[in-house]
Amino acid sequence: MLAEIITIGDEILIGQVVDTNSAFIAKQLNKIGVSVYQITSVQDDKEHILKSLREAEENASIIILTGGLGPTKDDITKNTLAEYFDDTLLRNEAVTQNIKRLWADFVNNIPTQVNLDQALVPSKAQVLMNLHGSAPGMWIEKDGKVFISLPGVPYEMRGLIDDVVIPKLRKQFKFPYIQHDTLLTYGLGESALAERIEAWEDQLPHYIKLAYLPSLGRVRLRLSGKSMDKQMIQNEIKHQIALVLPLIEDVFVGFERDESIEAVIGKQLTAMGKTVATAESCTGGKIAELFTANAGASRYFKGSVVSYATQAKIDVLGVDAQLIEEFSVVSAQVAEAMATAAIKLFDSDFAIATTGNAGPEKGDADTEVGKVFLAIATRDKVFSEQFTFGNHRLKVIDRAVNKAFEMLQKEILKK
Amino acid sequence: MLAEIITIGDEILIGQVVDTNSAFIAKQLNKIGVSVYQITSVQDDKEHILKSLREAEENASIIILTGGLGPTKDDITKNTLAEYFDDTLLRNEAVTQNIKRLWADFVNNIPTQVNLDQALVPSKAQVLMNLHGSAPGMWIEKDGKVFISLPGVPYEMRGLIDDVVIPKLRKQFKFPYIQHDTLLTYGLGESALAERIEAWEDQLPHYIKLAYLPSLGRVRLRLSGKSMDKQMIQNEIKHQIALVLPLIEDVFVGFERDESIEAVIGKQLTAMGKTVATAESCTGGKIAELFTANAGASRYFKGSVVSYATQAKIDVLGVDAQLIEEFSVVSAQVAEAMATAAIKLFDSDFAIATTGNAGPEKGDADTEVGKVFLAIATRDKVFSEQFTFGNHRLKVIDRAVNKAFEMLQKEILKK
Repeated sequence: MLAEIITIGDEILIGQVVDTNSAFIAKQLNKIGVSVYQITSVQDDKEHILKSLREAEENASIIILTGGLGPTKDDITKNTLAEYFDDTLLRNEAVTQNIKRLWADFVNNIPTQVNLDQALVPSKAQVLMNLHGSAPGMWIEKDGKVFISLPGVPYEMRGLIDDVVIPKLRKQFKFPYIQHDTLLTYGLGESALAERIEAWEDQLPHYIKLAYLPSLGRVRLRLSGKSMDKQMIQNEIKHQIALVLPLIEDVFVGFERDESIEAVIGKQLTAMGKTVATAESCTGGKIAELFTANAGASRYFKGSVVSYATQAKIDVLGVDAQLIEEFSVVSAQVAEAMATAAIKLFDSDFAIATTGNAGPEKGDADTEVGKVFLAIATRDKVFSEQFTFGNHRLKVIDRAVNKAFEMLQKEILKK
Repeated sequence: MLAEIITIGDEILIGQVVDTNSAFIAKQLNKIGVSVYQITSVQDDKEHILKSLREAEENASIIILTGGLGPTKDDITKNTLAEYFDDTLLRNEAVTQNIKRLWADFVNNIPTQVNLDQALVPSKAQVLMNLHGSAPGMWIEKDGKVFISLPGVPYEMRGLIDDVVIPKLRKQFKFPYIQHDTLLTYGLGESALAERIEAWEDQLPHYIKLAYLPSLGRVRLRLSGKSMDKQMIQNEIKHQIALVLPLIEDVFVGFERDESIEAVIGKQLTAMGKTVATAESCTGGKIAELFTANAGASRYFKGSVVSYATQAKIDVLGVDAQLIEEFSVVSAQVAEAMATAAIKLFDSDFAIATTGNAGPEKGDADTEVGKVFLAIATRDKVFSEQFTFGNHRLKVIDRAVNKAFEMLQKEILKK
């Protein structure tokens, strides 16, 4: 069972907006055993949308469209669908009521005619009620294939996918079982890793695929299996992982979960009843931001001092000015002093500190670009490591953040 | 002149990775007058890639592929290109030298055979040297059309697009002039806005397109024009903006620049020789992180206290515990006290403070989810505003961050 995703909107094709919807939809489809054959982004243009629908119908059984459902003249998806299915638009009473409710609750006004016209849907479509916005989702069946049209606003689309589309697909079809397992490795390049596991890779059965996903300092190995026989896939992937692990044990650091590392750390800290704080220089608050992006962060995240200016390290964190003078602001000593200060200031159990130069220019410390010190403190000890993270500013920041989470997690796991 | 972008890689189709490359490429192409007809994401599958190449060749004159150039078995783009162009792979000496240099500089090892084999390129391809990685870019011409294959690693791809592909395209082709102007409006829904400017929209000439881009609390109106006659497009867009502005003056807040608002603020502060600091609760360091993502942030950004826990507001920022007791931690009084504290702690000219409940649960203050207070302080005054930003955690954070930047910018512009 294959799916195709079509995103509609000039804003994607001029690069004004990054298409995050497709990745979300693809992930949710994958979880229920639906493979995505292709993702296509097209303009707000009737002929182009019609062409994409024809092509998608050839390749896939489930076609999901997003975008082009707004109330304005550039939103043409609904009329195009009506044309594609040789259909007309009818006013839907439930959608009309939903629009009136939304306007009463959030707009404090009565909806205008263009708002109310969002309740016009192709007569062949089942309405998928959008509780978060005025544009309804639509579900149209033709020759055993399903066409699903969703609004492009991400949280409206997500609500419909999770609450309506996925349950409805599962009810209607029998899907194969898909499993992805991703092994995280650090410290070995993609090609060196490939050479090392070549013999293992060659003996993989045809229904297990291997992919290498290299990124900043790490290579993820993803094993994917798909079959109607769930037990067989589970056993085979387990077996293959058992075979490969001894080959990579020096660089293997764990399995990638659907969750981010900071979410995993958050859960570990919550379970332990422990807390964390950060003192960030070169990472500029990104570690704090990632912690707090998770619901429930207040249970384990105390806070952060982003001491970007050198003087702030002295005034706010209370790092000794002489220490900075002697060792430079980008040094193991200062990183450790920052981490220790964070523990004290925030009364936390763990602290992360970062100091370095993300570039592109040499900063206060005249340190080479890409040089970063990361420190981890607990209530009774502190340690740090030095890294060189290249000369691309955002890359340096991201690598520092990733590495800091990794160091903290290792420390937490020791407890 | 139309372009098509093809991204190759299963990781996109299973939703493991969001395709940010396409938006970047589309934006850079647009700037030089090339419209992107379609963006297509396909699997690491030879037949599928060949099919996409055939379709793209029908629609577009410039076809840009990313991904599938790594050294491992799942990377099949190069062999597929050789098949498509009825070509063979030849070893390129310059790429071999580049790989040896990269390994000497960064890997401290000699490259293995799979690494060296990345220097194999189709004989009909011109090599686009990738200074940041071992996979070369490739440029292949056929019947006046150009096929460009680039690595999928974002910073490698970006370097090649900016430094090699765009200059080479401009040298080889004469492109039309494309201009996009985006007007930011706040406080009026998409449909109400559309009704208000309907008569104006109807009289737009056919070569000027209008798009509505609604998002959290704002609607962006994008005018796009394209022609070989640059002067005509510039004049016409200017004329149309002059016509529409009087219709929306109560909700118009400015033009969207290619730069983010925090980058614009950074430039304004640098020009004024002024500085900013932040005291963040519900935004968790995101404002600090966005400031510091910009190169040169050390000139104007002093630092931040992320006082996530209530106790941190007292201990680190020095907010009066009684104030919190009396007015609650989510209050105008506490937001203003935080902003004033940030000015003092960091010795900055401006400060932003945020306190609120991003949800999904009621936190320390038992405040309703979505309620946020934002404060702006200068050295001699402080003020705050209250907002209700809905019940979606990341949306609340984003809206608070956007609004805080907007408040700060207004204050800066008064100086």
